[in-house]
Amino acid sequence: MSEIKQITDALLRFRDERDWEQFHNPKDLALALNVEAGELLELFLWKKENQADRDKVKEELADVFAFAFLLAEKYRFDVKDIVLAKISANSKKYPVEKAKGSAKKYNEL
Amino acid sequence: MSEIKQITDALLRFRDERDWEQFHNPKDLALALNVEAGELLELFLWKKENQADRDKVKEELADVFAFAFLLAEKYRFDVKDIVLAKISANSKKYPVEKAKGSAKKYNEL
Amino acid sequence: MSEIKQITDALLRFRDERDWEQFHNPKDLALALNVEAGELLELFLWKKENQADRDKVKEELADVFAFAFLLAEKYRFDVKDIVLAKISANSKKYPVEKAKGSAKKYNEL
Amino acid sequence: MSEIKQITDALLRFRDERDWEQFHNPKDLALALNVEAGELLELFLWKKENQADRDKVKEELADVFAFAFLLAEKYRFDVKDIVLAKISANSKKYPVEKAKGSAKKYNEL
Repeated sequence: MSEIKQITDALLRFRDERDWEQFHNPKDLALALNVEAGELLELFLWKKENQADRDKVKEELADVFAFAFLLAEKYRFDVKDIVLAKISANSKKYPVEKAKGSAKKYNEL
Repeated sequence: MSEIKQITDALLRFRDERDWEQFHNPKDLALALNVEAGELLELFLWKKENQADRDKVKEELADVFAFAFLLAEKYRFDVKDIVLAKISANSKKYPVEKAKGSAKKYNEL
Repeated sequence: MSEIKQITDALLRFRDERDWEQFHNPKDLALALNVEAGELLELFLWKKENQADRDKVKEELADVFAFAFLLAEKYRFDVKDIVLAKISANSKKYPVEKAKGSAKKYNEL
Repeated sequence: MSEIKQITDALLRFRDERDWEQFHNPKDLALALNVEAGELLELFLWKKENQADRDKVKEELADVFAFAFLLAEKYRFDVKDIVLAKISANSKKYPVEKAKGSAKKYNEL
């Protein structure tokens, strides 16, 4: 069984043991993902680029992944497929010859 | 090779072809993750729980995953390990007998 | 003295008594604003539209305002001017005859 | 009439001309505030602390203020009162003698 399937199964088991599927609609899952992303961001607040506490980053990033995987499962997305498809689309928005070494957004390149 | 390794390798290849590692410090990756989480959230704005456009959710969620995997790679986290560890920790914060059917936060249970 | 000036002065006094101006660069203020917006959002998580705790909303919204006013001060923006200018710009993006009763984004109207 | 009342009145007029009150429940207003905060944050992505485009900051910050004022109005909060009350509460969490010159969170001071 793939790693992503194992992770997702563990998340669903945790959810179903608590009878939480009733709360896990797509909108609230997206909302939860934002809340967790904000908690991750807080670890970098007022700090230099690399000064966040590694153990706390680990925990908050795990929470972000949890809701991202739950949202992917809710829509029956294959995570590998959607990320590789997005990389492919971004390759056109950010062609190497224009984007190399530049942090500009595609519409400003 | 595991799926997560394949996804991460594709992301690093995309990054390195564009010489973008110089921009990808942990703080800005966490910031990018928040920006993408916000774009995902926007798809649900003013809408009922299930009314977001599925194809757009696919794209924005892919962006969220991209930065989450890049951040995990930056810290050398094993994604499966950190999510399973978090589920285990949450099992103690949300014991089944107290949390079942309740949407309350652990400190209000 | 205007209310906004009074609020801003109180925020600057609080900041300066603690010698915190050194941390309050625009990027970290924008980051702090996002962290606080996420804490506000969490109060609505898994809940119906009107079920957030009013007293907690009050506190988290106050934090959002604090960083918004500090950011406005950092750029020397007049808050009334910039909001009224944005309403004026939005009136063109969302003309009444097209936007009335619709929650669509301007580029989908 | 106070500036904040003038801003709020202009926002309500814009909303009511478009018959949008039906969409402006507290949860979606909090969600909109997060979306706009994310757009503001994006202006700082991959950039040094002061390198965001000032005119774009002006627009995105105006959007943040718009939803913050609408949310305050929805709950009938007096913005000055709630911010001054929060400063007062924070003065206890961050006493000058402990917090001076430190970026630590109150629970780590």
